[in-house]
Parts: sequence; C-alpha cells; structure tokens
Amino acid sequence: MAAWAERLSGVRGVLLDISGVLYDSGTGGGAAIAGSVEAVARLKRSPLKVRFCTNESQKSRRELVGVLQRLGFDISEGEVTAPAPATCQILKERGLRPHLLIHEGVRSEFDDIDMSNPNCVVIADAGEGFSYQNMNRAFQVLMELENPVLISLGKGRYYKETSGLMLDVGGYMKALEYACGIEAEVVGKPSPEFFRSALQAIGVEAHQAIMIGDDIVGDVGGAQQCGMRALQVRTGKFRTEPLEVEPGLWNAHQLS
Amino acid sequence: MAAWAERLSGVRGVLLDISGVLYDSGTGGGAAIAGSVEAVARLKRSPLKVRFCTNESQKSRRELVGVLQRLGFDISEGEVTAPAPATCQILKERGLRPHLLIHEGVRSEFDDIDMSNPNCVVIADAGEGFSYQNMNRAFQVLMELENPVLISLGKGRYYKETSGLMLDVGGYMKALEYACGIEAEVVGKPSPEFFRSALQAIGVEAHQAIMIGDDIVGDVGGAQQCGMRALQVRTGKFRTEPLEVEPGLWNAHQLS
Repeated sequence: MAAWAERLSGVRGVLLDISGVLYDSGTGGGAAIAGSVEAVARLKRSPLKVRFCTNESQKSRRELVGVLQRLGFDISEGEVTAPAPATCQILKERGLRPHLLIHEGVRSEFDDIDMSNPNCVVIADAGEGFSYQNMNRAFQVLMELENPVLISLGKGRYYKETSGLMLDVGGYMKALEYACGIEAEVVGKPSPEFFRSALQAIGVEAHQAIMIGDDIVGDVGGAQQCGMRALQVRTGKFRTEPLEVEPGLWNAHQLS
Repeated sequence: MAAWAERLSGVRGVLLDISGVLYDSGTGGGAAIAGSVEAVARLKRSPLKVRFCTNESQKSRRELVGVLQRLGFDISEGEVTAPAPATCQILKERGLRPHLLIHEGVRSEFDDIDMSNPNCVVIADAGEGFSYQNMNRAFQVLMELENPVLISLGKGRYYKETSGLMLDVGGYMKALEYACGIEAEVVGKPSPEFFRSALQAIGVEAHQAIMIGDDIVGDVGGAQQCGMRALQVRTGKFRTEPLEVEPGLWNAHQLS
C-alpha cells in the first residue's frame, strides 16, 4: 500500500474512461464490469474530483448516461466530456458545414449544426453505418473539396463489446486519409485539447490528475503526454500482448 | 516525333493497365476509353510484345476478358497478369488457408483453395462487400491468429467508374493494418514480383519494357522502381493535381 500512496500522492482529480472500464457495450445495453459501479460510488464519496472522459461516438451523452444509470452508475450528463459536443464547438468556430458519417444514436448532438453544402467530413464510430456506399460518399465529398477537412471523433483501433472485439473509427479514418491523401484532425482522446477541456471542467491541473482507461494509446499515452498520470485497467480491450509502454503501469482494479 | 523515338528506343514489350486505360468499369459492363480499342489493335499488329497487367480484383480473368471482348478489344485470358491467380500460387506455396474478403465476381479464382480453419486473411476490392460486418469478421480472424497474415490484392487508393470515383482496396487494407497493428503483403502492382511475372510471360527484360497506366503510384512508380519506363495516361483516375513524379511523364494517347 505504501507504493500506491506514493504513486497517488497529490492527486486531486480522476478522469474515467467509460467503455471497457465501467462497462462493455453490447446488445441489451451492455454489461457493467465487475466492481466498477462500486468503484465510481467510492470515488464520488472521496474528496477526489471525478470526470468521465470518453471517446464514445455511437451514442449521445444523454443516451450514454441513461445506459450507465440503468446499470447502477452514479453519473449525470454534465459530468461527461465527449467528442461530439467538442466537435460541434469546432465546427461553429471555424464555419465548417459537415457531411456526417456517424451512428444514428449520436445524430441528435448535431441538431443545431448547418449541414448544407458541406465543406468538411465528420466521421465517428458509425458501426453498421460504415457501409461501402457511406464510406464512398464521404470519400467523394472530400475529393470534391479544394481543401478537404476530415474530422474524426477519436482514432481508436477497436473496442470490446459483450460479443467480442469490434472495429472502431480509427481504421475508417485511416482508410479515408489514405484514399484522399490527407490527414484527419482527431477530436477526442488522445488529443491534448480534449484532456485539457475535461480537466478544466473539474478545475484540476494535469499534474494533479490521473486518467484511468483501457486503451494504451488513447487513454494512457495521451494522458501522459499531457502531464497526467495514467492507469491501465485489465478489462475492456486490454490484451496481454507485449506493449511498449512507460514504466509505472498499474492495475486500476487495485484502486477500489 | 524525334523525342518519342528516343524515349521509346529499345522498347520490345508493352505492359498495359486495364481499368482507366482501356475502359472505365461501371454498370452495363462499363465503357471503352476513346481510341483504346484501336490502340491495342495497333500494338498487336506491331512487333511489340503486349501483356495486360491489372490489379482488377472484382472480376475473374475470364469475366474481365469477356467484358473487354464485348467492348471490341483483342484480348484473351492467357494474356492477362492479375493478382488473384498470383495470390493462389502464394497461398499454396506457403500452406496458407485464407478467410476471403473479396467480391463474388472473383471467387471462382479461389475454387481449388483450402479455406478450412483460416490462418490468414485475403482482401481484395470487395466493393459493396466492404460492409462493417465483413470488415469486422476479417479483423476478428486476424486478431485471433498468433501470427496474423494479411494479403491485399493491390493497394489502390481509388479508381474511376463511369459513375464517378470509387474507393479501392487500399483504404480497407490500411484500416485492417491499423486496427490489428500489422503490415499487409501486397500482391499486384506496385509489387516488383508482380511486374516481373508479367515481363517473364512475354520474355522481355525490364529495361526493354514500358508500362502504360493511369495510377501514378501503382503503375508509374512501381514500373520505374523495376527498371522499366512508364507512361501515365490522362484518362481513368488521372487528375491534374500537383504530383510529385519523376520527370519524363508523357501522355500515352500520343502513342496511338
């Protein structure tokens, strides 16, 4: 326990990934990961500030929070940092009108966005929406633009559903990058801006915060690059393959 | 004309790309590109050796040749170097049993291949077959292998159909590479082995041959790396965007 106290000294805030850490998504709303409902409750009773920091882009925050509440989690919409609202802010700031390649579940987040005469493409984890026809349409929109802008909500390789590993948005982002000869802008983890906006929401500095996630790149690597500490859980997409990681990678489930 | 004679001096053989050079594929069998039927006929009347060198992976050679013959081209199955037969040879040599993510039109080329208990994935231009479900299945097969092998029939970015630009297999290859953290083996242009097998078939050395294609990477770059001369046509996927190419890039239609 001495080692843990040392590793966590000065921590005032905790950023929690959702998918693979709190629950595995899937049919029927998915399943809570053993111990996670209690771990969140315990963190919330502690003096630590807690923020949920997710790359979930299949569901609106409202829908996601509904699923988690039904699984017993103490969570509200205002506690969640998610890529769709962050993307909407960027679109408005830059006068961008998106062609959307997204899941129907997250479309409501874009309700007040002008989508006439698109001058960019926004891609998110569209799941079954990643048909050839939809991908080809996004490709054609980009190829018709003089300055093609592709915004990707996260760049995850895959995630775990109750039924198994599932391709995430990252591969499809790479496909469009390659076909169009462009580079996407990623909104979400591991983007430093995204972590900073989550930290700002709880008024905690990076060196006082710890990120808990299952993705070695998006969660752990991204947080460490921002000056945060990070903790990889052994649930979700965690695999026991050889990983090139920073020393000091711990099992988050020891926390609770 | 003096310049042309100099550029073509010592040429004994011509490799011809098919899609975007001879015809644009599309509904109803596609359309011959103006002048191409006559150019092939003229080449065949000349002392030059002619070989068709294609990355077409939606159709079997038989089907492809049938389409071209109906458009008026003088072409037979034995004159075509294509990635599916080359892949079958590799699968047999290495004892690989593929999970196929391919177009139904090319499936007959794999008729005598053992596909039980797959130990590799073969990906080709599957067109509408690139559904999320099919991509995810290929991804899951690769993730379950201890030494995942991904073979891609070409790595084209896109091609031109009569209805417009279409995503080619390359982007989907990149998606699986990224999601699985692996590198694909490419069978087809611009692989040097592929060009060499086409040259062997007509008994011509690389320095005596010229490749005619519409793809600056797959056709022109690949051929040049093999020591061949190359010529980019201004049809098919050719675009007047700034390109980083070798000097000495000519308009093939001046040939005929």
